[in-house]
Parts: sequence; C-alpha cells; structure tokens
Amino acid sequence: MRRFPTPIHNAAAALGRLPGVGPKTALRYAFALLHFSKLELASIGRAIVDLGNITLCQTCFTFAEKDLCEICADPNRDATKLCIVAEARDISTIEATSVYKGRYFVLGGTLNPIDGRTPETLNVKALLDLVKNSPSITECILAFSPDVHGETTIMYLQRQLSTFGKSMTRLARGLPMGADIEYADEVTLASAMTGRSKA
Amino acid sequence: MRRFPTPIHNAAAALGRLPGVGPKTALRYAFALLHFSKLELASIGRAIVDLGNITLCQTCFTFAEKDLCEICADPNRDATKLCIVAEARDISTIEATSVYKGRYFVLGGTLNPIDGRTPETLNVKALLDLVKNSPSITECILAFSPDVHGETTIMYLQRQLSTFGKSMTRLARGLPMGADIEYADEVTLASAMTGRSKA
Repeated sequence: MRRFPTPIHNAAAALGRLPGVGPKTALRYAFALLHFSKLELASIGRAIVDLGNITLCQTCFTFAEKDLCEICADPNRDATKLCIVAEARDISTIEATSVYKGRYFVLGGTLNPIDGRTPETLNVKALLDLVKNSPSITECILAFSPDVHGETTIMYLQRQLSTFGKSMTRLARGLPMGADIEYADEVTLASAMTGRSKA
Repeated sequence: MRRFPTPIHNAAAALGRLPGVGPKTALRYAFALLHFSKLELASIGRAIVDLGNITLCQTCFTFAEKDLCEICADPNRDATKLCIVAEARDISTIEATSVYKGRYFVLGGTLNPIDGRTPETLNVKALLDLVKNSPSITECILAFSPDVHGETTIMYLQRQLSTFGKSMTRLARGLPMGADIEYADEVTLASAMTGRSKA
C-alpha cells in the first residue's frame, strides 16, 4: 500500500530533483505546498513551466527572454569594456555592486580538464570571435574566482586574447572587508601589499 | 534594471515560498531548473498543480484523493483500534513500522493555546463524534510526541474520551535504540525502568 496519495508522491519526486533536496526535504516541501490554494499552486506550477521560455543571449550567452539579453540590447552600456565571467549568475553579483557599466560575456564555466571542461566545451570560440569583430572593445576584464580553475582560465584566455591587442585586467586580490591580517594567507597578503593604494 | 529575465525571478519567488527556502536558495533552485528540458519542467509544474486535487478524508482527516482515504476504505484494517495522531505525516511514519493494522485519526496538531491551537481549531469534535458513534472501537491509542504540547493533548483527550468507556493507551516511553544509559535524562530512564519488560 502506498503511504500517501499519488499526487503527494509525484510532487515529492519532482521537488526531489532540485539540487541538495533529498527525499525527506522533498516530502516536507510537498506537504507545505498542500496548505496552498489551488490558485497559488497553479501560479507556482506556471512559474516553473515558464522557465522553459528562457534562452541564451546570442551575443553574451547569459539567460535571456529574447535573442539579445537586456544588457546587450542596452545602448547606454559602455561598449568599450567586456567583462568575462564563468556563469550567468556572476553577472547579477557584479551588477549588484553598481560600479561596472560595461558589457558581459558568459564563458559557461572554468577550465577543468579532469571534469571534462576543455576550451571546446566552453564558449571560447564565440568569445574570440566577439573580441576579434568588436573594434569598440578596449578592455577585457577576466572576472574569475581566484581559485585553481579560475587562475587556469585567466592564464588560458590571456594567451588566446593577447593577439587582439586589447587591455586585459583581472579583479583585484587583497584582504576582503572585515578580514583580520593575522589570519590572512600569504598569497592574499602579498597581493594586498603589492596592490596597495593611497590611504 | 532587473538582474534576471522575469521567468527566473518568478520561479525564484515561487520556490521561495517553500519552507526554509530563502532568496538565495530559491534562486539556486531556479537556476538548476533552467538545465531541465521543457518536458521535464512541464511535468514538475504539473506535479505541483496536481497537489490541488488532494482533499481530506471525511472520516480520519488525512490527505486523500477521494472522500475516504485508502486506510479508512480498507475493510482489512482492524476497526477495533483507533490511533490518534497530530499530523497526517505521522501516519506514514507509523505505517513504516508495519506493527499497527488499525485505523487512524488526524487531530490536526497538538494543543498549544499560545499559538492559538485550542480544541476548537483541532478536529476534536469530529474525533468525539467518531468514537461515540463507532461501537467497534475498543482501544484509542494517543500517539503524540512526548513533549509539552503532546502531553497536554494526551491529558486533554483522555479526559474528553473517558466517558465513552474505551481502553486508552499511549506510546511507550523508554530508551531509544542506540541510546547510552549514561546520557539518558531522568524522566526517560524512569519510564524505561517502570515500563521494563522480560529480557
């Protein structure tokens, strides 16, 4: 005998496909949804189905509703700067700072040959084509996390992009806000020292 | 400017209504769903919408697809026993043990006047009617958690049900499997001692 009506099982199975959600959490989610009205459930279901309408921007490969994302379609964006990020989510993180007004390009990940992420599986070819065919771009910002794969990707892209004669920059390394010098690692502290700015 | 296309925002807002899911987790869920095919998204959305078809069993108040739940509709169930639980989920937990073959009744919670859960907000009246009008019932098992609200509910129901002359039982208290006597609290150990069984 089944322990719950089929719809509860189906909903738990569906929610169990979310990342980090096991069978117990999925069942908890399903039971919580049971307290919602039919109308609310319909709107939640619709919101999920509507995700199917999301495509990738043909220029920068971020998530978009049309062929061009809002940033690529915005003429007020500074077309001289191209910020290259690993994932589309990184764009929102950078946008939240409001200090960058240029364009973006989503590489689709970082180089990690062990996990099978080689230049061929990333949007490297599209990036090279974009930089080659965009004389307006003067600076490429390689905005990757300063970990092994990020550093590998920065080194690789630096070499690939060097032929186009653009200025290439990377995010500053240094002490994060609220950090304690006593506990800072040597690489971070060395970067903070060499990259010191006027007080 | 919005940081993501509207469908992603909507999905994150919808998923953020799940219990314990904050804006960051909701966005993570939404991004994970973006990797699913349209067909998969449709089936997940349908599973959630279908939860709207769940009703409550008219006899025992558990979740059901029809007027009667599977257990109440099952003639092979022992009609002499009624196990009264706080939530519908408790039924599945007890069913998983396979030691109980009787019927259930979902009270809808435990008594907790501070949170506004008085006898009127629970299914107390329906329970009293059911016990009164079911001469087949000989035993009422008060299967509540042994915490403050569970104990209060057990005491309250004992008093209310006492007029019907049924045998009333509660779940045994004692050492849980794998427990260490050294760390057991006094109440549990006292219960385990007084309720000791033949070795």
